[in-house]
Amino acid sequence: MLTLCYARNTISLATHIALEEVGADYATRRLDFSVNEQRGEAYLAVNPKGRVPSLITDRGILTETPAMLAFVAQSYPAANLAPLGDPFAFAQVQSFNAYICATVHVAHAHRMRGYRWTDDEGAIEAMKRFAPRSVGGCFELIETQMFKGPWVMGETYTICDPYLFTVAQWIEGDGVDAAALPRVTDHRRRMAERPAVRRALQQELS
Amino acid sequence: MLTLCYARNTISLATHIALEEVGADYATRRLDFSVNEQRGEAYLAVNPKGRVPSLITDRGILTETPAMLAFVAQSYPAANLAPLGDPFAFAQVQSFNAYICATVHVAHAHRMRGYRWTDDEGAIEAMKRFAPRSVGGCFELIETQMFKGPWVMGETYTICDPYLFTVAQWIEGDGVDAAALPRVTDHRRRMAERPAVRRALQQELS
Repeated sequence: MLTLCYARNTISLATHIALEEVGADYATRRLDFSVNEQRGEAYLAVNPKGRVPSLITDRGILTETPAMLAFVAQSYPAANLAPLGDPFAFAQVQSFNAYICATVHVAHAHRMRGYRWTDDEGAIEAMKRFAPRSVGGCFELIETQMFKGPWVMGETYTICDPYLFTVAQWIEGDGVDAAALPRVTDHRRRMAERPAVRRALQQELS
Repeated sequence: MLTLCYARNTISLATHIALEEVGADYATRRLDFSVNEQRGEAYLAVNPKGRVPSLITDRGILTETPAMLAFVAQSYPAANLAPLGDPFAFAQVQSFNAYICATVHVAHAHRMRGYRWTDDEGAIEAMKRFAPRSVGGCFELIETQMFKGPWVMGETYTICDPYLFTVAQWIEGDGVDAAALPRVTDHRRRMAERPAVRRALQQELS
């Protein structure tokens, strides 16, 4: 049995969608960021990093979205969410996900959580102002170079797709011109129609 | 045949060590950051992100250290650099590496490359000043919670070890008190004695 610890409007949606895509038997536990529940003692015992998502399994707790997405794909091979038998193709999937994790999500976080990298209020404001450029640059690279279409990796839907969809929810908020990203926004629209995505969103927003 | 594109004193060392550990047949191509070669036209054709490392393979180019480390482990299973047959244990390895990639390395980068997230000179200076705290916090978590010992994942050496070793090279430069990290620094010392690590370093620094 798996339990996904998540919060609304966060990166945990990617893993939530993947669990729905594979038909996993799982429960959810919602963290309330508005009262900083992720920094509370009870949750820090689950994940000392104080972040979401965490995946509670019978063998222990997993954190970090790229690791959890690969775990879901490997644990439910019949769902074919990653090219598990091909190290090069699997590395391409993982490379895309590492870019989302360490570059795209990080650029976005400078608008929301600049306090991670400075305690200077002026610097935090400067980071916020720059988010349209840094996040925009990431999405331009995805749009023009990385996205193969119709899915991230081409003809086959993979664990890259829920991850891109999740960060693509935030582009308007980050001040990025969505109209300049026709392939990314078309992907976002098609993702939103998938039953697994609808179920995950309905559960998180209910 | 593999070709590793690297630069001295960068994160590419982690993959370089992994290639040495598995006995891979590979060539290297050194990029000169002092003349910004990573942003030159020739290299951008290899990696449009303008970063190192890149791994040129017969099937295409791979980027992003966590993806490349898993690729090396999966391509050379006899070297046993990751628990390939166990999705949960593999996810633990990947979770550690995602933390290095998206949190530790990113915190470090705020001392070196703050221009990624702002164009405000004062904010860049503020980020530099904060690096001892942000990087220090990461290493405190590794020291007290994540590092199992004697290797990152416990008794077995994995692709986590060269990755931790590489970012642990930078702690003094980041203003972190190494004396407060006895397990991390002991690991660093033992890593430096491994033949594969010596070979990779000798090649990079020659």
